[in-house]
Amino acid sequence: MRTIKLILAYDGTDFAGWQRQGQRRTVQATLEATIEKITGQQASVLASGRTDAGVHALGQVVGFETASRLSTAVIQRALNAELPCDVTVLDAAEVRPGFHPTHHALRKRYRYVIHDGPVRNVFQRNYCWHYTYGRLSVEAMQRAATALIGTHDFSSFETSGSPRKTSVRTVFDLSVRRDGAGGQGRGEDADFVTIEVEANGFLYNMVRAIVGTLVEVGRGFQPESWVGDVLNATDRRLAGRTAPPQGLFLVNVDYE
Amino acid sequence: MRTIKLILAYDGTDFAGWQRQGQRRTVQATLEATIEKITGQQASVLASGRTDAGVHALGQVVGFETASRLSTAVIQRALNAELPCDVTVLDAAEVRPGFHPTHHALRKRYRYVIHDGPVRNVFQRNYCWHYTYGRLSVEAMQRAATALIGTHDFSSFETSGSPRKTSVRTVFDLSVRRDGAGGQGRGEDADFVTIEVEANGFLYNMVRAIVGTLVEVGRGFQPESWVGDVLNATDRRLAGRTAPPQGLFLVNVDYE
Repeated sequence: MRTIKLILAYDGTDFAGWQRQGQRRTVQATLEATIEKITGQQASVLASGRTDAGVHALGQVVGFETASRLSTAVIQRALNAELPCDVTVLDAAEVRPGFHPTHHALRKRYRYVIHDGPVRNVFQRNYCWHYTYGRLSVEAMQRAATALIGTHDFSSFETSGSPRKTSVRTVFDLSVRRDGAGGQGRGEDADFVTIEVEANGFLYNMVRAIVGTLVEVGRGFQPESWVGDVLNATDRRLAGRTAPPQGLFLVNVDYE
Repeated sequence: MRTIKLILAYDGTDFAGWQRQGQRRTVQATLEATIEKITGQQASVLASGRTDAGVHALGQVVGFETASRLSTAVIQRALNAELPCDVTVLDAAEVRPGFHPTHHALRKRYRYVIHDGPVRNVFQRNYCWHYTYGRLSVEAMQRAATALIGTHDFSSFETSGSPRKTSVRTVFDLSVRRDGAGGQGRGEDADFVTIEVEANGFLYNMVRAIVGTLVEVGRGFQPESWVGDVLNATDRRLAGRTAPPQGLFLVNVDYE
């Protein structure tokens, strides 16, 4: 058996998330069915982590075993020819047996996009959180966010009930910018705020809880020091609400 | 009666174009129904021009008459609260009676976006033409395009059967660039080519026929001089094919 690693991009809008759930349209079920179609063999695909309904991926990493002799270039081309238009294979490579996309991941990076302009951007409606409570101060958010960088117990930013051995994670980078990453249909770039977080792992809904907390500071409803207080309290009830899924993108996953 | 001018943005993906067509979901029918809902009065809306199914607008201009006393700020807010998420009012203003968005337009600008990278961009799939025949030379396209600037008979770039008095139009600007207008989900900006055309008016499918012709040059299938030859022949059969609708954006319309 060969082990194949794929890098996937998908638009999460019309998927019920990554993970197979009965008859619902999920990325995993769609990909497994397509692999079976091109290789003629059942496939079981693992991902670096689940993404929820509405969450997007620019570089999700997945792996599967196959007895197929098709080259990785042919696998990529054949999958892209057969996959629906909202998921695509950016790269395919053969990796050492035993490669596990979840357990072997060293770092993951997520991006969250907020639109804080007054009028909805029709082209970005599925790719951002339209924040309608007023203009955000990215400077205040960036200063407040520094409290989260480093190794901490992130219980305050974990949706309760998640089965994890530990809620300690290391955040390597957390940036907040009002940026020029705009483009087609983005209208005024200045109306978009991008938050990026890189860590050695993430608790369930951690990025969305961090975003929901930082906007409280960005809007001036809480002082900058509050974010550190929330972290130290290790109590989810103290943090901001969970930001909606459609603003979230899994950017990439690093291995060894 | 007051005359109200609106500037609209819409994502054309799920609309059967601008113009009312029986029970189909069109921008005109959607907007008229929403105006009637907020003013309590029937409304008949005119646009600067029709857009076809799948074609988008960053700044479509429309006008309607109303006896409503609502301020334009309230009209804009109320429409945006009631309109579906793929159409939005960017501006509302009261204009002089008799304003006609079609007849009084002086200049219109369209943008066409081509993606010529090898792998489909899932986030831009409804907002560009994925050109899979290879890399385009924007330099060759730009040089060839200069033949179209100025006042010409554009019959070669008009879908036949259109009822127009004349097929002479003046193109003020035609630019082809491989640009940094990328952003969220665009991946490599360098894989996107943007063509913008400004003219005093456009024949039916004119931008899409120009694009379909320029790519023949960009791909090296025709020499640069061929575009001028096609123009001079005033024969639609000689030009390239009509590029697909989803890459086309009505950018703005200028009046007096």
